[in-house]
Amino acid sequence: MSLIADVDLLSPATPTHSRGLISLVGAGPGAADLLTARALQRINSADVVYYDRLVSTEVLSLIPANVRRVNVGKEVGNHAWPQEAICAVIVDAALQGQRVVRLKSGDPAIFGRAGEELAAARAHGIDVEIVPGITAASAAASALCEPLTERGRFDRLLIATGTTMAGDTPEQLASSLAPGTRLVLYMAVQHLSVIAQQLVKSGLSTETGVTVISHVSSPKQQHGQFSLGELQQGLSDKRLSNPAIVMIDVPHLTGVSLARDQLSLTQA
Amino acid sequence: MSLIADVDLLSPATPTHSRGLISLVGAGPGAADLLTARALQRINSADVVYYDRLVSTEVLSLIPANVRRVNVGKEVGNHAWPQEAICAVIVDAALQGQRVVRLKSGDPAIFGRAGEELAAARAHGIDVEIVPGITAASAAASALCEPLTERGRFDRLLIATGTTMAGDTPEQLASSLAPGTRLVLYMAVQHLSVIAQQLVKSGLSTETGVTVISHVSSPKQQHGQFSLGELQQGLSDKRLSNPAIVMIDVPHLTGVSLARDQLSLTQA
Repeated sequence: MSLIADVDLLSPATPTHSRGLISLVGAGPGAADLLTARALQRINSADVVYYDRLVSTEVLSLIPANVRRVNVGKEVGNHAWPQEAICAVIVDAALQGQRVVRLKSGDPAIFGRAGEELAAARAHGIDVEIVPGITAASAAASALCEPLTERGRFDRLLIATGTTMAGDTPEQLASSLAPGTRLVLYMAVQHLSVIAQQLVKSGLSTETGVTVISHVSSPKQQHGQFSLGELQQGLSDKRLSNPAIVMIDVPHLTGVSLARDQLSLTQA
Repeated sequence: MSLIADVDLLSPATPTHSRGLISLVGAGPGAADLLTARALQRINSADVVYYDRLVSTEVLSLIPANVRRVNVGKEVGNHAWPQEAICAVIVDAALQGQRVVRLKSGDPAIFGRAGEELAAARAHGIDVEIVPGITAASAAASALCEPLTERGRFDRLLIATGTTMAGDTPEQLASSLAPGTRLVLYMAVQHLSVIAQQLVKSGLSTETGVTVISHVSSPKQQHGQFSLGELQQGLSDKRLSNPAIVMIDVPHLTGVSLARDQLSLTQA
């Protein structure tokens, strides 16, 4: 493949001369002011920035004009960049002594496929670091002004992808969701009806509250609240498109409906 | 109590006049350059900053000299601030029209007791927001340069406190830890031997790898790797004091030891 050029990932070179640095940098959820100062510093001192499809234009506008930028976003279509090709180009640039920023939406450490890029850098003796970013779950909590944990009510936070949860049997789901868990699902919109069906089969009340928030922290941000029961038919609100995250509360008292709406009615 | 002054939290005032703003701001793990630009902006434009015991001196040095700062850290001893008192003073300052920053280590939305302070602000009709921060789990991943999720190996990230996990029976633990989960425990050092004993009883191999990292992102940062078996006797390495987080991998193949050391031996 031409992208891989003359870098052979299977035969790491001995680190005998000065090399560049690869920084896996968290771009956060989208708003430019949600990057860390360290992330900004790395972007400002980069020679080249390789960025993902989900990195917002607002964040991209922070890249200085003299810094080369390359979109390695894995678009569905003709111009998909396989992970191996991304690894190859960042390693190649670093081997040329360049300061490489690999800019990923959210936090590179959470569903950012950082592992493959760390391994590729290490295999070539290239210095590599992770600069953390605000992950989508934290951004959603900020956007909704609702914490992810609540003392005594939600003391566990389980973060998973839609694909992972949709692949579980109802029995697996039932056992893995301890009471008092707030479940935050990334990339889950297309799996939502399957997940809702499985969760209801696993014993969660159809009244369980579900929040869906899309395009967190961007001007396109939208959110909606649903019951698990209605989501079994899929998400009817088409404003809520990917990227979106889904928050589901598994309450402490099973057998008693603790859906948010019902709680409000009881208290009213 | 004198701290509560003349603010009666049980009788919210009708919001009839202009009020201040309460910003619950994430200070991140400790390094000053891991704050977001938004957090810095809020600190710079604050009238008063109420901060926790765990907010680092490096972060505190970012507060402008003309901004009043109050340590509401919940020290063990004579000068403990109960949560109610903290709620009272931030509400009181906001009711005087001040821009209040409530600075919390990590992310306010994750084990930050944001719920009580949000409720107090809302009860008085005060505008309130959460400015997200880098939570300790993301900071640890950055510090160790190891991602929190790994495609196909660790597709679930469970974040909980030491107290919560230590309170589980082995049966509850066994059922709640789905294979392929990376477990990150906050404030867990003092509970580590109990948790290790329970996890071994629940069926996890004594060879399971455990990483403990203390004072993440500060000059005092230390980390160590242990087996679950040895941690049953407690943490012998006294350099690893609180604040610390504990990372435990629950591998996909139960019954087969996938401890990191053993994997390395097999591959060597």
